Amino acid sequence: MTEPRIGFIGLGIMGAPMAMNLLRAGFPLAVHNRTRDKEMSLVSEGAVAADSPAATADAADVIITMLPDTPDVESVYFGANGVFNRVRPGHLLIDMSTASPAIARRIHQAAVERGADSLDAPVSGGDIGAKTGTLSIMVGGSVEAFERARPIFQAMGKNIVHTGDAGAGQVTKACNQIVVALTIEAVGEALVLAKKSGVDPGRVRQALLGGFAQSRVLDVHGQRALEQRFEPGFRVQLHRKDLAIALQAAQQLDVSIPLTATVHDMMNSLLAQGFGDKDHSILIYELARRANVDIG
Amino acid sequence: MTEPRIGFIGLGIMGAPMAMNLLRAGFPLAVHNRTRDKEMSLVSEGAVAADSPAATADAADVIITMLPDTPDVESVYFGANGVFNRVRPGHLLIDMSTASPAIARRIHQAAVERGADSLDAPVSGGDIGAKTGTLSIMVGGSVEAFERARPIFQAMGKNIVHTGDAGAGQVTKACNQIVVALTIEAVGEALVLAKKSGVDPGRVRQALLGGFAQSRVLDVHGQRALEQRFEPGFRVQLHRKDLAIALQAAQQLDVSIPLTATVHDMMNSLLAQGFGDKDHSILIYELARRANVDIG
Repeated sequence: MTEPRIGFIGLGIMGAPMAMNLLRAGFPLAVHNRTRDKEMSLVSEGAVAADSPAATADAADVIITMLPDTPDVESVYFGANGVFNRVRPGHLLIDMSTASPAIARRIHQAAVERGADSLDAPVSGGDIGAKTGTLSIMVGGSVEAFERARPIFQAMGKNIVHTGDAGAGQVTKACNQIVVALTIEAVGEALVLAKKSGVDPGRVRQALLGGFAQSRVLDVHGQRALEQRFEPGFRVQLHRKDLAIALQAAQQLDVSIPLTATVHDMMNSLLAQGFGDKDHSILIYELARRANVDIG
Repeated sequence: MTEPRIGFIGLGIMGAPMAMNLLRAGFPLAVHNRTRDKEMSLVSEGAVAADSPAATADAADVIITMLPDTPDVESVYFGANGVFNRVRPGHLLIDMSTASPAIARRIHQAAVERGADSLDAPVSGGDIGAKTGTLSIMVGGSVEAFERARPIFQAMGKNIVHTGDAGAGQVTKACNQIVVALTIEAVGEALVLAKKSGVDPGRVRQALLGGFAQSRVLDVHGQRALEQRFEPGFRVQLHRKDLAIALQAAQQLDVSIPLTATVHDMMNSLLAQGFGDKDHSILIYELARRANVDIG
């Protein structure tokens, strides 16, 4: 059985190392990026450069996209010279961007109409996870497509979970981003109240880690806030985008998620202050600023 | 060195098993409860019944209180026949109730004025932790008083943390309750959005447990919500009381804790529906109800 030929579109801070891991795992690879010179490092390792999303689809059996946001995904799949100009029966389209569940379902429907298939497979783990091939991958789509893609995912990630039909990967990612954002805020409200009460936030963090308030966010982001280390990490502007996806899905489904709405709004304030490129743990700093206290 | 004589006031669902553990550890024990017949089971095991908080103080070197709320604490310490009618130099007063940091500081000041000392030492771990002697104990007060009380705490708890001066134990408990409440709500918003999106909330919980969204609340309360098991556990009306303490402290210190305020408000709605005696994980049910969906 020969390895499927993979076309990879979107060679940013996440996509480039993910594509490199596919190359190292032995997959024949065609690559495309809007800013073409980003293709060069992969070409020098054996990948083939493709002129457009459509040309990438022509050269591959499996097309992977890793793009910044939902409009980019829409354009790469459905735009001029987009992937869907050349989708043929048997093609597998895998969008690993964090995008809306709605666009995942639209891609899936268009793929199925052409005798092809698709998966939505957003990731978490950041650029470090992308480099080390240890991403968490949340997958929506058919069991058949998931099994077909499994060896490809295994070259890029470790915790690979199939959570349901088309769109389910994006829904799972949105849920993940809700829980992470709200837990950061929970830790922030606690640590700021402690500090303003004259109690050492570091001791409070330590005490809480031993009980029911334990979380990875309390451990990692709590410590970040105490040390005032807000270099990313995961940029607050990207997390805001992810919460916007969750809020849009919630509106379409008439779901009340009031804390998510409040934290999204707080991220607006952080971007207004010029902190969009800081780590999302800066939510804790924002709470401290509002209380006029320094918890570091 | 003889064991200190302990007076224990407040023999409710938490206090009675805590007092029993002190008795079993060999401490001479006087007990008092407003409803006097609750003293009987401890008297039958060797404790001495005391007529009032004042009489309990007379009979003991260390006085422990375990009461429902801040007004009860105020009454037992400062009311007619209260502890402070008989506090003498060398007495150690330990309030293990969950009460306001302000009352803890007031008790401390009154104790010090009489040549005595005090600790605020609220717990978490529930009635099961009280019975098995595995409570987490968060302690505020002097290092000397903490060291003096340590063997007493060790008879009742496992994770015993000294977080600062008088009031710091109550502040730490308030922080703990903020983080737990907001994390339950975070998990709820995620699972309800998943379900309404047509994605199995059980798979989402499983996927999220493997990554950065991990928490004990996602593990335990997430599973409770999936199984619709809302028998307590920790009653939502008690958690509402604890958030009210946090909100009062925040108001006194001008600290903005918006998510805590929102979740407290949601607990008001749960009590209005008659769910005050259900487990606090019923916050997730409330979100499901608002979205007109059943996540179990």
